[in-house]
Amino acid sequence: MLFRLESDSIGEKQVPKEAYYGVQALRAAENFRITGYRVHPEFINALAKIKKASALTNMKVELLDLKIGNAMVKACDEILQGKLHDEFITDPIQGGAGTSMNMNANEVIANRAIEILGGEKGSYSIVHPNDHVNMGQSTNDVIPTAGKITTIILLEKAISKLEELYNALKQKAEEFDDVIKMGRTQLQDAVPIRLGQEFKAYSSAIKRDITRIKRTLEDLSYVNLGATAIGTGINADEEYVKEIVPNLCKVTEMKLFQAEDLVDGTQNTDSFAAVSASLKTCALSLSKIANDLRLLSSGPRTGFGEINLPSKQNGSSIMPGKVNPVIPEVMNQVAFNIIGNDMTITMAVEAGQMELNAFEPVIFYNLFQSIETLTNGVDTFINNCIMGITANRKHCKELVDNSVGIITAICPHVGYKEAAKIAKTAIKTGEPVRKIVLQKKILDEAALDTILDPYGMTEPGISGKQLLFKANKAANE
Amino acid sequence: MLFRLESDSIGEKQVPKEAYYGVQALRAAENFRITGYRVHPEFINALAKIKKASALTNMKVELLDLKIGNAMVKACDEILQGKLHDEFITDPIQGGAGTSMNMNANEVIANRAIEILGGEKGSYSIVHPNDHVNMGQSTNDVIPTAGKITTIILLEKAISKLEELYNALKQKAEEFDDVIKMGRTQLQDAVPIRLGQEFKAYSSAIKRDITRIKRTLEDLSYVNLGATAIGTGINADEEYVKEIVPNLCKVTEMKLFQAEDLVDGTQNTDSFAAVSASLKTCALSLSKIANDLRLLSSGPRTGFGEINLPSKQNGSSIMPGKVNPVIPEVMNQVAFNIIGNDMTITMAVEAGQMELNAFEPVIFYNLFQSIETLTNGVDTFINNCIMGITANRKHCKELVDNSVGIITAICPHVGYKEAAKIAKTAIKTGEPVRKIVLQKKILDEAALDTILDPYGMTEPGISGKQLLFKANKAANE
Amino acid sequence: MLFRLESDSIGEKQVPKEAYYGVQALRAAENFRITGYRVHPEFINALAKIKKASALTNMKVELLDLKIGNAMVKACDEILQGKLHDEFITDPIQGGAGTSMNMNANEVIANRAIEILGGEKGSYSIVHPNDHVNMGQSTNDVIPTAGKITTIILLEKAISKLEELYNALKQKAEEFDDVIKMGRTQLQDAVPIRLGQEFKAYSSAIKRDITRIKRTLEDLSYVNLGATAIGTGINADEEYVKEIVPNLCKVTEMKLFQAEDLVDGTQNTDSFAAVSASLKTCALSLSKIANDLRLLSSGPRTGFGEINLPSKQNGSSIMPGKVNPVIPEVMNQVAFNIIGNDMTITMAVEAGQMELNAFEPVIFYNLFQSIETLTNGVDTFINNCIMGITANRKHCKELVDNSVGIITAICPHVGYKEAAKIAKTAIKTGEPVRKIVLQKKILDEAALDTILDPYGMTEPGISGKQLLFKANKAANE
Amino acid sequence: MLFRLESDSIGEKQVPKEAYYGVQALRAAENFRITGYRVHPEFINALAKIKKASALTNMKVELLDLKIGNAMVKACDEILQGKLHDEFITDPIQGGAGTSMNMNANEVIANRAIEILGGEKGSYSIVHPNDHVNMGQSTNDVIPTAGKITTIILLEKAISKLEELYNALKQKAEEFDDVIKMGRTQLQDAVPIRLGQEFKAYSSAIKRDITRIKRTLEDLSYVNLGATAIGTGINADEEYVKEIVPNLCKVTEMKLFQAEDLVDGTQNTDSFAAVSASLKTCALSLSKIANDLRLLSSGPRTGFGEINLPSKQNGSSIMPGKVNPVIPEVMNQVAFNIIGNDMTITMAVEAGQMELNAFEPVIFYNLFQSIETLTNGVDTFINNCIMGITANRKHCKELVDNSVGIITAICPHVGYKEAAKIAKTAIKTGEPVRKIVLQKKILDEAALDTILDPYGMTEPGISGKQLLFKANKAANE
Repeated sequence: MLFRLESDSIGEKQVPKEAYYGVQALRAAENFRITGYRVHPEFINALAKIKKASALTNMKVELLDLKIGNAMVKACDEILQGKLHDEFITDPIQGGAGTSMNMNANEVIANRAIEILGGEKGSYSIVHPNDHVNMGQSTNDVIPTAGKITTIILLEKAISKLEELYNALKQKAEEFDDVIKMGRTQLQDAVPIRLGQEFKAYSSAIKRDITRIKRTLEDLSYVNLGATAIGTGINADEEYVKEIVPNLCKVTEMKLFQAEDLVDGTQNTDSFAAVSASLKTCALSLSKIANDLRLLSSGPRTGFGEINLPSKQNGSSIMPGKVNPVIPEVMNQVAFNIIGNDMTITMAVEAGQMELNAFEPVIFYNLFQSIETLTNGVDTFINNCIMGITANRKHCKELVDNSVGIITAICPHVGYKEAAKIAKTAIKTGEPVRKIVLQKKILDEAALDTILDPYGMTEPGISGKQLLFKANKAANE
Repeated sequence: MLFRLESDSIGEKQVPKEAYYGVQALRAAENFRITGYRVHPEFINALAKIKKASALTNMKVELLDLKIGNAMVKACDEILQGKLHDEFITDPIQGGAGTSMNMNANEVIANRAIEILGGEKGSYSIVHPNDHVNMGQSTNDVIPTAGKITTIILLEKAISKLEELYNALKQKAEEFDDVIKMGRTQLQDAVPIRLGQEFKAYSSAIKRDITRIKRTLEDLSYVNLGATAIGTGINADEEYVKEIVPNLCKVTEMKLFQAEDLVDGTQNTDSFAAVSASLKTCALSLSKIANDLRLLSSGPRTGFGEINLPSKQNGSSIMPGKVNPVIPEVMNQVAFNIIGNDMTITMAVEAGQMELNAFEPVIFYNLFQSIETLTNGVDTFINNCIMGITANRKHCKELVDNSVGIITAICPHVGYKEAAKIAKTAIKTGEPVRKIVLQKKILDEAALDTILDPYGMTEPGISGKQLLFKANKAANE
Repeated sequence: MLFRLESDSIGEKQVPKEAYYGVQALRAAENFRITGYRVHPEFINALAKIKKASALTNMKVELLDLKIGNAMVKACDEILQGKLHDEFITDPIQGGAGTSMNMNANEVIANRAIEILGGEKGSYSIVHPNDHVNMGQSTNDVIPTAGKITTIILLEKAISKLEELYNALKQKAEEFDDVIKMGRTQLQDAVPIRLGQEFKAYSSAIKRDITRIKRTLEDLSYVNLGATAIGTGINADEEYVKEIVPNLCKVTEMKLFQAEDLVDGTQNTDSFAAVSASLKTCALSLSKIANDLRLLSSGPRTGFGEINLPSKQNGSSIMPGKVNPVIPEVMNQVAFNIIGNDMTITMAVEAGQMELNAFEPVIFYNLFQSIETLTNGVDTFINNCIMGITANRKHCKELVDNSVGIITAICPHVGYKEAAKIAKTAIKTGEPVRKIVLQKKILDEAALDTILDPYGMTEPGISGKQLLFKANKAANE
Repeated sequence: MLFRLESDSIGEKQVPKEAYYGVQALRAAENFRITGYRVHPEFINALAKIKKASALTNMKVELLDLKIGNAMVKACDEILQGKLHDEFITDPIQGGAGTSMNMNANEVIANRAIEILGGEKGSYSIVHPNDHVNMGQSTNDVIPTAGKITTIILLEKAISKLEELYNALKQKAEEFDDVIKMGRTQLQDAVPIRLGQEFKAYSSAIKRDITRIKRTLEDLSYVNLGATAIGTGINADEEYVKEIVPNLCKVTEMKLFQAEDLVDGTQNTDSFAAVSASLKTCALSLSKIANDLRLLSSGPRTGFGEINLPSKQNGSSIMPGKVNPVIPEVMNQVAFNIIGNDMTITMAVEAGQMELNAFEPVIFYNLFQSIETLTNGVDTFINNCIMGITANRKHCKELVDNSVGIITAICPHVGYKEAAKIAKTAIKTGEPVRKIVLQKKILDEAALDTILDPYGMTEPGISGKQLLFKANKAANE
């Protein structure tokens, strides 16, 4: 390979001649060999957008030569077209609050601009990574801003996918609204419910999650570009500071605002912690739903067996014909992963010191993964599981008919103590509650028909209320 | 001790004759000897309010005899006056989704009402814990509702305390607005900042936290009373279901709403997870501030020494005269405890199955502790720390004057590469940056006075911008 | 109340005349109103043991006057008899690395010793909390050592309780060794297993947990007494440093060793993190077992219904006759609480800086709670759940007979593809696997009797291996 | 692309003609698009080793045709040479307990063996993925065993790297043994210590971590191969069950043992939780060391400034000459990531149900990442940070000379109260402690020379003990 010689404060170093990245990205790539992965492509795009907005603003306030500035803008546009992404060589987990990612962008843009201007890569007197590309900026305003832009973009996809899930669950709630089945509390037979009511409850939880996640977008839209090193705006032109965020809005086509308190905007990362916390809460809802679906579909013969999940693949390498709830299982795992990522983000946010949180790289690495795996997990959850669920109506009905739990509906008419006795007898003897009540002549057939009407038991109200009033009256007389 | 004999589905059992609690609370106290603590007093009050609202509603819909109902209301009022709290004997960590806490309340209220009606404790034919006190209710709507009421009451105190902290920090921000000091990023000298700006940034973070915590109140105000066992409202009179929450509003003097989806309201506990997550995020801000205060006050001679925390107690049993940052340290510990509690709540919320989350007791135990220790921790933080902080103005100024970091302000005028060289020389030789620049005749005294104006460096803008333009023009010509 | 006047570096302060604690404990009680709880009684005892060993050693090396020293020893003995515990008034969550707890002990012992010597409380010229009671010590060696002693004592109870659980599970494994039932993987019917094998697997996990917890005792036995402030042993007599830990062994009747590296022993708290981590891992096993028991006992009619948990209390306030798995549920909650406590400990251990971890109080608060709730939770788990479990043998057998999962045993004889087809038919038609195989004339009755022998399917080996060989031979010919 | 048609229980599906993977891997790749990453290469190798050992064993027990078996062995060897890894196409986060990874291996080996035997890919009548490659195995023994083998291999590298760190820290401890500096507790000046003692303490913590991590290897060496589906060994030949693990030892060249309780070995994943917990504890030590190094090197002018970390890259894009502690910062981030991964593993281990933990894929994904990032992070920590650290000896000494903390050494001679007064005066006036003591004629020069001997203060013992005895005697007379 051919090399060119570059230098920084550490000294001289050979850089591959054809590389757009420079000495600083290269040193970072060597210092931080941690995950083996690279920075997220949307984050690279966010950097390009910021650099573009910055160049446009610096040209406008007449600090940046138009020729240089326009070449830089062109380089940024190329990155936004998906080019040059391979030149971003740093590991997503890196020291230095993201200086290496920022300098990597500065170097790539500088070198491409140099080329555009007819120079040779590395001729930084033509376009300088710090003096020109980073003009009016600092890692400490560029990186948090890029992090927020990326998070918003990824979150919007996640929200849209969650809305799809919400609709899927609601659709299933309607489909299953007439499937009467036993409800269970603490895994024990409780009282009847409709399968549709269960799916509606799932959708209600997801709706709250969507609202909670959306709320976190607001704080994200306040970026600290213009803050430079520590929020005081040192070395950024005053006009630039005023215009940079409006310009960034144009470049990104997003509604962003400049943080009122730029010092705060630079040192505090609580907004990312809040996003992650909302994802974690959502993960809990998703995991709960996945757990329920696995319970409801347990069997086919020795479990609850109330619903069927669509078969998506052979279930076992040894047990022929076995179908496993693999999609809910991967939903659970995505949830567990998000919960763990939230813990990493928690640690990293807490560790910020004084004017900066140096641990933003690991925050972003985990946050982006949480959002994307949530999106991907929910996608397969909807399409390979939820939408294909069918109900075992007959089995559901048998379980209700056979249940002792319906004694609850009889309780208001006979009192808790008497009802408990009947329940105990039913469990012991295996006889239906109805039969015992009739045998004991506690209530007659007509009364029981009213009280034990299955659909009636799944809506508010005391079944057979008139009977109750009669009983009450008698008691009071 | 004298005993009376009570019985439940398990069998007969002796209960202390004078006890207002009954057999079910007693069994629970024996089954769950876990923490050695008791249920939170505000939670006991919340139970009394619910039972009172329920009695009033059942009387109105003519299901409950007025004589019995009024005696029950009187018993509830006594609890709300702080009486009978000793009769709530169950451990806060208990199995059974809180049935034991609910039955404990039912028994205490029944026995007190029996007494009021002239009967002997245990004469449940007069007032029955299940048939009368629990009428139209289930553990599964009573306990989540009581949990929400308690959380709201405790949160309001916490929010008020956080607002006090916000004001204290803002007040300090103003007091310290003229204290110019070095900013630090990654614990390394960066560029000048004002101590007031740092405190303002702290206040900005706390403000966001207050907003985030307040947002969680909304979901909490949707209670599931009327849902009974699994949200279908079985055994609750239809009119009762409509009137119970409005009546609860009157009794509690709170703005509560009945959840639209009562099945969801009974099985999902994500709203508590969201509260806890917002407290966790707030804990991160508090811990970060505490960390910074400990850094800034480190010394007195071998640390940063920029501020003094008020002395609140001898610092050491062996080192005389030592003053330690004990209040920020307890703030940190409160934060760590809240973060751990959030993890417990996370696990418990995830573990809910089907129509119920049986793990609400441990959720409440941790959530109430988080809110209260936050309130208490912030209280001592404000009064024993923040308000008494003083600045070492002279030392702060010396550090700025002596710093190499001010080279940054010179950078726009000389370029990054040249500036880096000057910085290196300054660090190596220990000479002031200003002196080196003058020696090298890079800029003259007048220019440096403008560029290195301390206050100027703490606000946006390029110090000595005209110089820069001159330089730019020269370069372009 | 009558008061006496005491003073410290902060100034003068009134202390209740009859209090054995002094000004420093009182200030701490006022500074740290966090949890409302007090320091653990075993920790108070550990402090008394350390102070006693220290007094004995200082007398022996002739630094401490015998009269004073012996009075102090007497005071310590009284504390160890359970007296004076009310005088320990500090909150378990406190700033200052435990200086307040240590000084509280120093003050109580000093004041009691003063009384013994005929003086009035507060006459510290007779016995001084720092100069005499704390002689040769520092908070920074006293508190970690007390923490280790307390942890060991509490852990030993926990280990003994876990061993009881191990034996209970093994006993049940034997009792249930002949109960053949369906195994489930991913909640789907798998292949037959014996209920005893399941209980044995539970016991095997607990056995590993016991081993892991025991291993952490080793590090705990290395204490840093003699290290004083930062591990350099400043102000502790050289002979004292050599003799203090042997003397502590005598006083505590424990096998303790002095840490080789006292600087390390003072600043690092990883040994507590390791204990907590082992408890967390144990909590995972306990929670998994509790989850399984809740699944196995789900029903009685709409769940798995393979085992019965003993009824310990009424299950519901509204649903008569309902029996809930309240004991496993509280076991789960204890586990979740331990996992959250581990997170708090994780944060606190990580936060140690330089020569000390100032966050030991919150570490101890959480660690002691974890150990004790584990012990208490396991106690009720054994006695109120495990020991009373019974098997529904008939139902277990029916589920096996009715299962499709037994197709697995046929698979080696017919190949995976053919077997999968049979399984699919069985699930679709609801017909027994055996019948289909016979109908299709794939295997004869005799072969099936061999292959589908229930007990045979629960032990290694291919049922009907000879058949297989025949099949293989045929295939190869 | 050209396709071949394959089928499974779900139906027919086109598979790329040249693919070695088959229909099952392909469905899995479509069902689980979660992280976008692939299964770890060492895990692929572990699968190949297991499949090879299994083929050898099945041939030996005469269940597997030699021609087929040998072709399979050859295919496995090719994988072990690094070939065919691209054919492993499933996402590391996947549902189904790893069935997809196992079947992916079965398909690749079958198809390669078919090729070797002259057949066309997909001709499973020649070599069948289930009947031949998976013979005597199940996902549920293959995957946990592969997970353990992989973990051991990765852990051994991590342990070796930690031992390198231990040695590096010890080497530095010796190098810095004569650098006397101020110790700090709670970030406040304490008493003198030697820089070497601090580094030795770091090494001591790492040593304990190594021991703790090593201990977890023992449980990992017990594998459940032979357990098949649920630990009962169904469908595995009895001789095979006995010989498979010894054969696996030969193939892997590792010391592995068959779990005594195979049912336990199949369902419980606590051993992985224990590994992760030991890594988490190690991460705490690493993070604490990194935090300390960042504090000690803070400055250069406004911080502690006691040590210099090697410069590894430009520190800032805006602040010239800034050098940041980027390597400790990445070490911190690796630690935070490991702590978060441990939380994910905690959730996943807890979620195991009945005979299997279906969430092993996410356990492995996080565990492997934890081990590898630990190894990589420690590698850069040693080579780019620890080894190049230098001490600012002069500054360290000045801080000691200038410190108030040395009053501690004087305390035994004058009493705590008097010493506290001197300290207060020193802090207030800024005068040296020594000067005040002399002025007040409390001790003379000679005494102070003895008492304040810097090295003496860093070792156990009371400096100037004879003086003390004199004082004591005088007091007693």
